[in-house]
Amino acid sequence: MSNGGNVRENDTLKPMDSKQLREYGHRMLDYLKDLLPDAAPEQPENFQHVLDDITKKIIPGLTHWQSPNFFGYYPGNSSIAGFLGEMICSGLNVIGLSWITSPASTELEVIVLDWLAKLLNLPDQFLSTGHGGGIIQGTASEAILVVLLAARDKILERIGRNSMDKLVVYSSDQVHSSLKKACQIAGIYNDNFRIIKTDASSGYGIDPLNLDQAVHVDIEAGLIPFFLCATVGTTSSASVDPLVKIGKITEENAMWFHVDAAYAGSACICPEYRHYLDGLEYVDSFCMNPHKWLLINFDCSTLWVKERSALVNSFGTNPDYLKNKMSQQKNVVDFNDWQIPLGRRFRSLKLWMVLRLYGADKLRGYIRNHINLAKQFEQLVRSDSRFEIVCPTLFSLVCFRFLPYNNDNDDDGYELNSQLLDAINSTGQLFFTHTIISDKYILRFAVGAVLTEERHIREAWKVIQNQATIISNNHILSKINLK
Amino acid sequence: MSNGGNVRENDTLKPMDSKQLREYGHRMLDYLKDLLPDAAPEQPENFQHVLDDITKKIIPGLTHWQSPNFFGYYPGNSSIAGFLGEMICSGLNVIGLSWITSPASTELEVIVLDWLAKLLNLPDQFLSTGHGGGIIQGTASEAILVVLLAARDKILERIGRNSMDKLVVYSSDQVHSSLKKACQIAGIYNDNFRIIKTDASSGYGIDPLNLDQAVHVDIEAGLIPFFLCATVGTTSSASVDPLVKIGKITEENAMWFHVDAAYAGSACICPEYRHYLDGLEYVDSFCMNPHKWLLINFDCSTLWVKERSALVNSFGTNPDYLKNKMSQQKNVVDFNDWQIPLGRRFRSLKLWMVLRLYGADKLRGYIRNHINLAKQFEQLVRSDSRFEIVCPTLFSLVCFRFLPYNNDNDDDGYELNSQLLDAINSTGQLFFTHTIISDKYILRFAVGAVLTEERHIREAWKVIQNQATIISNNHILSKINLK
Repeated sequence: MSNGGNVRENDTLKPMDSKQLREYGHRMLDYLKDLLPDAAPEQPENFQHVLDDITKKIIPGLTHWQSPNFFGYYPGNSSIAGFLGEMICSGLNVIGLSWITSPASTELEVIVLDWLAKLLNLPDQFLSTGHGGGIIQGTASEAILVVLLAARDKILERIGRNSMDKLVVYSSDQVHSSLKKACQIAGIYNDNFRIIKTDASSGYGIDPLNLDQAVHVDIEAGLIPFFLCATVGTTSSASVDPLVKIGKITEENAMWFHVDAAYAGSACICPEYRHYLDGLEYVDSFCMNPHKWLLINFDCSTLWVKERSALVNSFGTNPDYLKNKMSQQKNVVDFNDWQIPLGRRFRSLKLWMVLRLYGADKLRGYIRNHINLAKQFEQLVRSDSRFEIVCPTLFSLVCFRFLPYNNDNDDDGYELNSQLLDAINSTGQLFFTHTIISDKYILRFAVGAVLTEERHIREAWKVIQNQATIISNNHILSKINLK
Repeated sequence: MSNGGNVRENDTLKPMDSKQLREYGHRMLDYLKDLLPDAAPEQPENFQHVLDDITKKIIPGLTHWQSPNFFGYYPGNSSIAGFLGEMICSGLNVIGLSWITSPASTELEVIVLDWLAKLLNLPDQFLSTGHGGGIIQGTASEAILVVLLAARDKILERIGRNSMDKLVVYSSDQVHSSLKKACQIAGIYNDNFRIIKTDASSGYGIDPLNLDQAVHVDIEAGLIPFFLCATVGTTSSASVDPLVKIGKITEENAMWFHVDAAYAGSACICPEYRHYLDGLEYVDSFCMNPHKWLLINFDCSTLWVKERSALVNSFGTNPDYLKNKMSQQKNVVDFNDWQIPLGRRFRSLKLWMVLRLYGADKLRGYIRNHINLAKQFEQLVRSDSRFEIVCPTLFSLVCFRFLPYNNDNDDDGYELNSQLLDAINSTGQLFFTHTIISDKYILRFAVGAVLTEERHIREAWKVIQNQATIISNNHILSKINLK
């Protein structure tokens, strides 16, 4: 968003302080409220009037995820093929309640999830031809919730519903916040959510020894380890848990093993990155988000399981008004029994259209280009000694930070990097975000917008360098003034 | 779908038997599998080729929810304004993670949910200006789950997490299956899901005396009644629970009171139907689905709560990588803390565009027209003594059945009506569905497709009458043959 408001000339180079932000924030919060009436119109409005409002009132208040200068969070790709798929989906507007309410919608989903499984070279057990299969969920949060619930119900069926207090969930401290949310929802006791600390020595992946130890301590305490969530491409730093080694632990202890590859899963369609998924033979469920980095417009999170019956056991309801011979005879897949909502959109269309209109080969090239751009950005960062690269760049995310000034590192550069990020984003020339790892404030530069080219990387780096210089100079000036 | 296959001439008038159905079913299941390759293409395909496949392979395998002859389930409306809203949403493809990831997306949602709350004349506590507010969820299933979880966590915070076995949920036997699913997910004990039986005497609404009695029995048994879900317009028969009377019971017992008006809520924008919502002052949360009958393309389920903090307490996670000053200072609404997924689409756009481009007045006319058509259909049914109307037609759903023949009612017409429905749907001239109420097989004729006009109602009735005549004649012939 543009830096509106009556900022005084000599303030323009200063990052906003929190008083200013609060002031602007309130103004922004009231932004649309002031611009729009407080009730729906009684009579139809002119279409051009509505379109004008979108251009003048809505668009200026958006964060532009499709900008080539968007490097925040992880990408949220839009594409022509994905867009056309959404248009057809919305135009047909068929509501998937069960197979019979739109057979082709379910069948295409089954087929296309098999296609994608093959592109990712997933073990055959994840294909629909056996006991497994794939489903499109809205988000990785929903995927993680449904498998956690399926795992919970499976173990409780064996040991009794009164044993909830014994169930223990494991993950690294780098796991996505959705696991915490899923645990809250599933009723996992707070004390039974084991967060295995990671550090730079294992590249912020889980150390299997630490996991093994935690599992054994819990077993000795009479608890029941039942679920592990590993990540391939964590949210903070795109780190990767070692699937084979931790898979052996989950196998030994009969735990449900889920792998969340929401972001980095897309890269694994390239053979040279597929090794990050080695170990999937130990895994019960696997999720990645084509809506992030595989050109599918949001939302489209793909989840595969090896035993679809575990989902149906947890989510099947089979009410009278949906009964039909096809479902009763178990001839067909009813995806409503694999998920939380009953109704579903025809989302497989956009996935199918992207795969067909672009083809696997071009999609691999698309991924490789972003990773290549990220490597170039990493080189730029390395070439400036004021900065450091914090984590290895495995995919298209570069984690770096501005090094704290000598003799001035009470907070190890936390405030400095926070100010720098604010200053850069306030220029309006690019947008990126941060994270905290091992108490360090880290700048995350995530390449992956469809329109991003080499020049955007170079220009972004120039802005970052310039703002860093300004902050350094201001810092030196303030020290002089203090003296 | 058309009635394909090599059915012999003299069989064409006979409803399919289950052997046939199984055979066709398998053929249908393999339908797309045979038509599509089993892997994604390596190289891009021609756009026209993909479009041809949609026309020739996908569309013939769909159930046509937008057909004027679709009378199944409840409607799933599509409209030009809703479609345009979806197009803009998909084109911008902004991902709502928190307020800052797309401010206008959140703000428009807050504003438009207030608009719709005012159209429905909801109590002020549901507006965003106080402690409440509205949010778009994907489906009513998700809405019911989030409020059940919020209610669960609120009571467990008071009485301790070990008391899960004491929590009791109440609803009528007409409640939507999503409540059962939500209870399974929330870990409510099966034995603690109280289903209050209803019958024709109360129009299939909850009898408050029965509810009161059930609550008191549970309290005496040391259990804790904590959640009631009432319905305005049930899935089976569009019956209505008496909100005021049962609201007094939930108030006395400090229970969370949720009202699901997924279908009939849309009718309540008309003053003459608003009385069905009288009693909302007792209610903690209220949900209706504009994607059913209010011209919003799927998905758009609107949920309002009086205490938004209850949702945030259950679903807030606040991870580092999403932290920002706007959220930290609680200046803004972060809808990810009111729902299960983290990411969200910009769905308020389509709701906003429908309300503006059509206006409240025309929307009321739209609803009234469907109710009027349903009344006309009801009259047609009443004019034929072979049929009976089973429930009062309160909105646009007509529940009726073909009366069983004299001396031939072992199953009270169950098989007869099941056959009739199959026969009618097999003509391909219309599509509608059934339900079971009080062990009776009931035909549900739900008016509400955008393109349905009076002539479609009349033509549908003719097809129904014709098929009923054929079935009667076959029945008589088979009796003669047996003699």
